[in-house]
Amino acid sequence: METVIGVIGAGEATDDEYETARETGREIAQRKFTLVCGGMGGVMEAACRGAKSEGGLTIGIIPGDFRKEANPYVDIPIVTGMGHGRNIIVVRSSDVIIAIGGSFGTLSEIAFALRLGIPVIGIKTWDVSSDVRQAENPREAVEMAAGLVDARAARGLR
Amino acid sequence: METVIGVIGAGEATDDEYETARETGREIAQRKFTLVCGGMGGVMEAACRGAKSEGGLTIGIIPGDFRKEANPYVDIPIVTGMGHGRNIIVVRSSDVIIAIGGSFGTLSEIAFALRLGIPVIGIKTWDVSSDVRQAENPREAVEMAAGLVDARAARGLR
Amino acid sequence: METVIGVIGAGEATDDEYETARETGREIAQRKFTLVCGGMGGVMEAACRGAKSEGGLTIGIIPGDFRKEANPYVDIPIVTGMGHGRNIIVVRSSDVIIAIGGSFGTLSEIAFALRLGIPVIGIKTWDVSSDVRQAENPREAVEMAAGLVDARAARGLR
Amino acid sequence: METVIGVIGAGEATDDEYETARETGREIAQRKFTLVCGGMGGVMEAACRGAKSEGGLTIGIIPGDFRKEANPYVDIPIVTGMGHGRNIIVVRSSDVIIAIGGSFGTLSEIAFALRLGIPVIGIKTWDVSSDVRQAENPREAVEMAAGLVDARAARGLR
Repeated sequence: METVIGVIGAGEATDDEYETARETGREIAQRKFTLVCGGMGGVMEAACRGAKSEGGLTIGIIPGDFRKEANPYVDIPIVTGMGHGRNIIVVRSSDVIIAIGGSFGTLSEIAFALRLGIPVIGIKTWDVSSDVRQAENPREAVEMAAGLVDARAARGLR
Repeated sequence: METVIGVIGAGEATDDEYETARETGREIAQRKFTLVCGGMGGVMEAACRGAKSEGGLTIGIIPGDFRKEANPYVDIPIVTGMGHGRNIIVVRSSDVIIAIGGSFGTLSEIAFALRLGIPVIGIKTWDVSSDVRQAENPREAVEMAAGLVDARAARGLR
Repeated sequence: METVIGVIGAGEATDDEYETARETGREIAQRKFTLVCGGMGGVMEAACRGAKSEGGLTIGIIPGDFRKEANPYVDIPIVTGMGHGRNIIVVRSSDVIIAIGGSFGTLSEIAFALRLGIPVIGIKTWDVSSDVRQAENPREAVEMAAGLVDARAARGLR
Repeated sequence: METVIGVIGAGEATDDEYETARETGREIAQRKFTLVCGGMGGVMEAACRGAKSEGGLTIGIIPGDFRKEANPYVDIPIVTGMGHGRNIIVVRSSDVIIAIGGSFGTLSEIAFALRLGIPVIGIKTWDVSSDVRQAENPREAVEMAAGLVDARAARGLR
C-alpha cells in the first residue's frame, strides 16, 4: 500500500498559494509518496503539477461526472459525481493532510480530518484547533507529514 | 414545498446545549416549519424532541444503514449509509441552518453552508466568519431564520 | 416513525407508466404512508402528484444541488448533489420499494434493494430475480407493500 | 491520464470466478492499464492480485472507513465510507468496465454503466441488455476493452 499525502486548498489560488502548492507537490513526489487531491484547479492543479514534474503519481478525486474534468496533471481521476460531497473522500483516503490557504471548502476538509483523527498540517490556513499543525513552508510540511506517517505506522493506524 | 430549517450540532450535547436544541425544535414547530437534522443523538435528538412536543414534522438524515438507527423523535429517517459524508446533505436540504455548539462535525457543516451560500445562524458556535449570524437564544435564532426564509423567497432563491 | 413506501421509475415515463405511478401515489396516501422517491419527473412526479391529490406527504431525494429542482408535488426535497449516486439512498430510506417500468436507473435501484434485503414489488418492471414480487396494478402493489411492512415490523426489522 | 479498466464482481467468488478475475488482472497490467475496483475480497482481490503479479497499478474504491480495510493487493485505497453507495464511483472512474459473475452488487454497477454510457464487457454475468458485450475469457475481454478505449479516445469521449 502506497503512502498517500492529501493536499487541500481552493480551486482559485493566489500566486503565492499556487507556488506553495507546486513546491508541496514536488516535495511529496521526491519522497515517493502518492498525491491525492480534489483534482480541480488552483491549489489542486499546482500540487499535481509539482508532483508530475518530479515523476510522482497523482490521484484527483473530482466533484464532477467525467474523467476529463480533472486538471491535466492528474494521472488517475476518481469520478465521484458528488460535488463538494467528495471532500470527505479526499480526507479519508489520505494518511496525512496538508492544507494550503483558507477557503470554506478547505475548512470543511480540515473539520472532517479533525473529526476523523487524520493529521492535518497547515500552511497559512485556518487555525481552528491546536490539532492543526502549522508549517512555515512546503519542505517543513512534507517533513512533518513523513514523520506523522511513520508514527502512525508504528502505532498500527495504517 | 415546506420551509425547512436545519439544526446542526454534536451527537453528544451538554445539558445546556440539549435544552437550547430542544427549545429551538419547539420554536421551529410552532412556526410550522419542517425540521431537518442528522437524526442521531445529542443536539439532533433534542431538536427533534422539541419539535415533536409541538406537533412538528422531523426528518433525520442519518449516517448509518438502517432506519431504526434514527433517534426516536424522527418521523422520517433518510438513510444515507454515508457516515459523516451525509453532513453536506443536511446543509443542502435546508433553507436556513441553525448551528448549536462547537464540535468538528458541526464545523464541517458550517463550512459547507458558507461555501454553498446557505444562511447560518449560530448559538454559541464556531465564529469562523462574519457570515455566521450570532443569536442569543432559540427564539431569536428561529425569528432570524424566518426572516431569512422570507428574504430568500422574495429574491427567488427558493 | 412513519411507514415509508419508495416509488422508483424513469424520469421520462410513457402515458401508461405515468398513470400507473399516479394511481400508486394515491393508494399510498390513502393508507397514510409517506411516499419517498427520486423527486424528479416522469414516474417520480406522477407518484408525488397522486399522493398529494389524496393529502399525502411526499419526500423527493433529488440528484441535483438545489431544492427548487424537485418536481412541484414534492413537499420536502432532500438535496443530495450526488446525481444517480442518490439512488441507493432512495432504496435504503424505504420500508418497501415499488418499481414501475424499466429504465437502467430503476434497475440499479432494484439491484440495490435485492442486495440490501429491502422488499421490491414490481409493476411491468425488470424480472431479474424471483425476489422481485410482481403486481398487476397499483392497488395490488400497495396492498402487497402494506402486508410486507406488517410482516417486517412483526420480525423487528423496522 | 492513465487508461483505467474497472473490474466488478462479488466479494465472495467461486474458484472459477476467482481465477477468471486473476487472469483479467494480469491481462490488464500487461497492457499497462490501471485497474480500478471496489477494493474488497473475491473478484476484486483476485483482479488486484493478478495485476500486481505483473507489476500493475491497483486502485480500490472501498466501502468502509479505513485504508486498511482494502485487500492486500490494493496500492491506493480510495476510502469512501459510503458502503455500496461507492459502486457508482467505481463505474464513473473507469474507461471500460469488465463484469465477472452475477451478484446483485454487480448488477447495480452494470445498470449504472448502461445508464451513464460507459461500455461494459461481461464474462458469465448478467445479460440484461444487448449493450453488455459478452466475452468468453479474460484475454478476449481485455482485448475488447482496449479496442473500446481506442474508439472512445478517437471520438473525444476521454
